Amino acid sequence: MKMESLKDLYLEQLRDLFDAETQLIDALPKMAEAAHHSDLKNAFDQHLRQTREHVTRLQRLFSALGERPEGQTCHGMKGLIKEGQEMIKAKGDPDVIDAGLIAAAQRVEHYEIAAYGTAMAHAKLLGRDEIVRLLDQTLQEEKAADQILTDIAERIVNVNAAVRRGKDFDTGTRTTM
Amino acid sequence: MKMESLKDLYLEQLRDLFDAETQLIDALPKMAEAAHHSDLKNAFDQHLRQTREHVTRLQRLFSALGERPEGQTCHGMKGLIKEGQEMIKAKGDPDVIDAGLIAAAQRVEHYEIAAYGTAMAHAKLLGRDEIVRLLDQTLQEEKAADQILTDIAERIVNVNAAVRRGKDFDTGTRTTM
Repeated sequence: MKMESLKDLYLEQLRDLFDAETQLIDALPKMAEAAHHSDLKNAFDQHLRQTREHVTRLQRLFSALGERPEGQTCHGMKGLIKEGQEMIKAKGDPDVIDAGLIAAAQRVEHYEIAAYGTAMAHAKLLGRDEIVRLLDQTLQEEKAADQILTDIAERIVNVNAAVRRGKDFDTGTRTTM
Repeated sequence: MKMESLKDLYLEQLRDLFDAETQLIDALPKMAEAAHHSDLKNAFDQHLRQTREHVTRLQRLFSALGERPEGQTCHGMKGLIKEGQEMIKAKGDPDVIDAGLIAAAQRVEHYEIAAYGTAMAHAKLLGRDEIVRLLDQTLQEEKAADQILTDIAERIVNVNAAVRRGKDFDTGTRTTM
């Protein structure tokens, strides 16, 4: 990998994000299908629509620079999606599985929050305000998606799971830490 | 994977974090070695010391529950570290490579911020305040580590890289987006 200039790094970051978002378009319908609670299904469906828009925005950034988005694998997202797949295949209490799907999805959102934050910082330094605005639009949507997942977890999934299985810890060994 | 109770999920999250932190103990010295700027080297070294402490804290949580931490691979961290390794091997401008190492490390921090945030939420629902406090201590250190990386990037690395190569975009095709 050649990192001669900030532009090289900026393009590498955008290619990483492009591949990450593309992987996510494949993964989100499976997450929605595996989710039990309708609010969670809807959140994944809504984020799928947003993710398609994020890919379109990235394509516009590449076009504006006369570059192509392809040619890079986002290993980070690959690992995160693998974690999500494990939760999709899990057996057990529907609320607990939904809480697990949210846990996996929030790791994905945080990956994107970090990645868009970095790409924005680079675009700012390179003096491209219109790019900064476009990346910030996506960043705000990723943060909102993360908040929606927190709300669903707090409001429904976690509470249900804890109420039903709230005494779990009493069956374990309790020692002072 | 069996997800019968919130405790199952909580333990799965802790095992994921234990493997993630353990992988990080191997990766951080290589990041420190690859970093060019002394502030960045120091930040990686400092975070290595913190990460060892985080592993110890997780071991205390497992002991308190009479459980073992082993038996799980954190695929998310595996992918994130692979991205860091690509940046370690990159050739080019030292400041740009340092900015790339920061980009990789901030993805790692955000993984951990999401993961500890989730584990804390579960521990709270399970009514274990002393666990919540311990997890929160680590969470705050991960957030602080992320902020230190942002500060280094803003203060030194990105600025140097942009000043030297600031005109990059003028050589690209510029179209209106």
